[in-house]
Amino acid sequence: MSEEIKNTRLLLEAVEARDSENFLESANVTHYADLAEIYVGLNGEERDFFTTHIDMESLAEVIPELPDTLVEETMERLDTEEQREILDQISDDDRVDILQDVSDDTRERLLELVEPDDIEITKTLLKYDESTAGGRMTTHFASIFGEMTVQEALESLRKESDETESFARVYVVDSKDKLCGYVRFRDLAFNSRDTIISDFMRPVKRYILASADQEEAVQLVSKYDLFVLPVVDEQHRILGIITHDDVVEILEEESTEDMEKMAGFSGEGSEETYLNTPTMTHFRRRFPWLFGLAILAIASGIVMMKFEGVLNSLFILSLFLPMIVSAGGNTGGQASTMVIRAMALGELDQDSIMRVAWKELRLGLMLGALLGIGMALVTMIFVPMFYHDMPAEVSFIKFGITVAVAMAIQITSSTLVGSLLPLGARAAKIDPAIVAAPAITTIVDVSGMVIYFFVAKAILGL
Amino acid sequence: MSEEIKNTRLLLEAVEARDSENFLESANVTHYADLAEIYVGLNGEERDFFTTHIDMESLAEVIPELPDTLVEETMERLDTEEQREILDQISDDDRVDILQDVSDDTRERLLELVEPDDIEITKTLLKYDESTAGGRMTTHFASIFGEMTVQEALESLRKESDETESFARVYVVDSKDKLCGYVRFRDLAFNSRDTIISDFMRPVKRYILASADQEEAVQLVSKYDLFVLPVVDEQHRILGIITHDDVVEILEEESTEDMEKMAGFSGEGSEETYLNTPTMTHFRRRFPWLFGLAILAIASGIVMMKFEGVLNSLFILSLFLPMIVSAGGNTGGQASTMVIRAMALGELDQDSIMRVAWKELRLGLMLGALLGIGMALVTMIFVPMFYHDMPAEVSFIKFGITVAVAMAIQITSSTLVGSLLPLGARAAKIDPAIVAAPAITTIVDVSGMVIYFFVAKAILGL
Repeated sequence: MSEEIKNTRLLLEAVEARDSENFLESANVTHYADLAEIYVGLNGEERDFFTTHIDMESLAEVIPELPDTLVEETMERLDTEEQREILDQISDDDRVDILQDVSDDTRERLLELVEPDDIEITKTLLKYDESTAGGRMTTHFASIFGEMTVQEALESLRKESDETESFARVYVVDSKDKLCGYVRFRDLAFNSRDTIISDFMRPVKRYILASADQEEAVQLVSKYDLFVLPVVDEQHRILGIITHDDVVEILEEESTEDMEKMAGFSGEGSEETYLNTPTMTHFRRRFPWLFGLAILAIASGIVMMKFEGVLNSLFILSLFLPMIVSAGGNTGGQASTMVIRAMALGELDQDSIMRVAWKELRLGLMLGALLGIGMALVTMIFVPMFYHDMPAEVSFIKFGITVAVAMAIQITSSTLVGSLLPLGARAAKIDPAIVAAPAITTIVDVSGMVIYFFVAKAILGL
Repeated sequence: MSEEIKNTRLLLEAVEARDSENFLESANVTHYADLAEIYVGLNGEERDFFTTHIDMESLAEVIPELPDTLVEETMERLDTEEQREILDQISDDDRVDILQDVSDDTRERLLELVEPDDIEITKTLLKYDESTAGGRMTTHFASIFGEMTVQEALESLRKESDETESFARVYVVDSKDKLCGYVRFRDLAFNSRDTIISDFMRPVKRYILASADQEEAVQLVSKYDLFVLPVVDEQHRILGIITHDDVVEILEEESTEDMEKMAGFSGEGSEETYLNTPTMTHFRRRFPWLFGLAILAIASGIVMMKFEGVLNSLFILSLFLPMIVSAGGNTGGQASTMVIRAMALGELDQDSIMRVAWKELRLGLMLGALLGIGMALVTMIFVPMFYHDMPAEVSFIKFGITVAVAMAIQITSSTLVGSLLPLGARAAKIDPAIVAAPAITTIVDVSGMVIYFFVAKAILGL
């Protein structure tokens, strides 16, 4: 696709040279997704040039592609007439997205610029939270009445063709907009013109309430390989559709969000790319967890202080201290990742807790036993090669057993903690991804120290 | 959707009672995705009953929905005639998926059962790796010739209608199958019947080579909001299309895979759900990394042993040892997650290394400075409250400075390591997700110990 790279280069050169003629020429042949990407990378003056010289029709396609944080400042670069034109050109759901991305003051001002024709639907859509099916749907779906003939249906669709996003499913409604069924567009094209729609329409088996979470929509689309998912209200009136591009967007957002939470990030994920997100935003999202976890980690230090006597009476214990502590974090992190991902894919319900616990308990015991035995062998075989101060009453065998037992307990308990904490979080209505790896690691670090020192005291009699 | 839950219950009861009549009745009204889900949960005898009594047409829809690991054993439950029927009923790409999921012997045997009509396309598709665009595409796309009239095109499409997955894009090809353009199905339906296709077809700007990685396909579809992505060979002949459900599947698989690798899992992710994956499979995927990381963690222990003198001369150092060590893991894990996700979303190319390094260096310095100062204050204010054995030549102020400096160095260096290691891995053609959190944590644990003890020696003169 070198054509695209060439265009991008020409466009950037035109912006830098403030050459409006070449700018317009390149902009006209550039995809709006690429235009948005270029715009994001420009500085303030260049963005002024961009918004001043691009035609409003193109800009109306570019703005919905921008990261949320850039929407307001971009709208502010336009005069009132231009803003009015953007709000008119744009689709209903994109208009609502813009209004949701700007500050309250700006929203009120912009709402006054919305054409009277569009104001009602805009205000209705504004009520749905951005992360619900209603907040995601597009209202540009194809609908016909059951009493129509194929001929009438095609004529009615032809009139709406420009504004309809997908014809893959044509929904059949009654006079109150209630969803009665659907036909495929090809069924219309290939049926004889005087057939009545209701004679061959199919029932709509999968639909979603506008108030439902967007994740539920994705799970339905993914499981049943749906082209389009209709969104309805409590009276089963069709309000809009969720299309493939919404699903792709939701999937990417949710996965990113989960990964970030699992790595200990605060706040909402940015829609901007990594490099375009300001360093201060990165900082604000990373600092709180790091600080909290650092304070928590002092608990491990307190444990170490408390067991100063044990450690000093046999300092070789410290050779395996980091290993036993970190094994808990690693195994707990694995277990929590498995469980959090399974929940995100809709595989686990609240009743699964016992089955998860049983599975992870067995896994923890198996992993703990095998790693324990492995480390006991390492201890008994290699440590005597370089360590010659082992007190007679301890012996390498007892030392190996200590390491093995501590390792086994630490891994088993960490596996259980790692798998059950996310389930517990969900039961307590906390986002499970939040209690993932870093939090679990810090918790099992403390327990690992305690386990190790207690086992050492018990077995070695220190 | 209580209708579905009721059906599922009836179906399960029928299977348990071995009641073939009720089984068939329920199976006929159950979606194949649900049938597959039910089948996965059955035991061996129940699966026998299921495959014996379901009609082959339904089974042909169920098998492609099964996890890879179940495909072979399910095919083996059928006799040769039934296998032949399944291979005939199924779409080309699903047939190839089955053949790729079974052992070499079974594949050869099954290939002989493929109808002569289908054998050539099957063998061609088998050449593409499952994770390439060619391996993912469906060959059931709609195509017409540019010289056709709209009337001719519609007639030709009508004949293919049953076997065509998506009419959203109808591709225009020449006599050598070369991709010349596309029309939307609605353009056909709404245009006058004698218009020539090439007069109104549009150019195809986005397409992908069959040999390209599936991730590239997803990035194109996602960026340009495509309905359908055509897959071509080197001669620009259209071979198939990637549709929305392929994209959803790829996205879910890749995200799961990345999360699992980032949490330290070995091997390929299972397509089965968490609960349906055998415990031994979970074990095998978790053990190798845990073992490797445990061995690596002994390095931290060796560092502790080496600095026994420092630690013993001022044991209060151990109060902050776990904090400084784990802060590196946490901050390195955050940085690596950010960078790995940005790479997966196609945001970073090899040239970005310097920009990433610069961004993370600043971030590391900011986080390190602020956390260092915070911990210095904690040290200077709270430690004197309970610790009264501080040697005069050390002083709480110097001790606080030690903690602050070690924390700052540890966080800055870990942030850099966490962000650059995944980029380095990619440059070395290793999957970046593999060097994520657990590996980075273990590495910076060691460096954290070294940093802390060296700083303590330098500042406190121990």
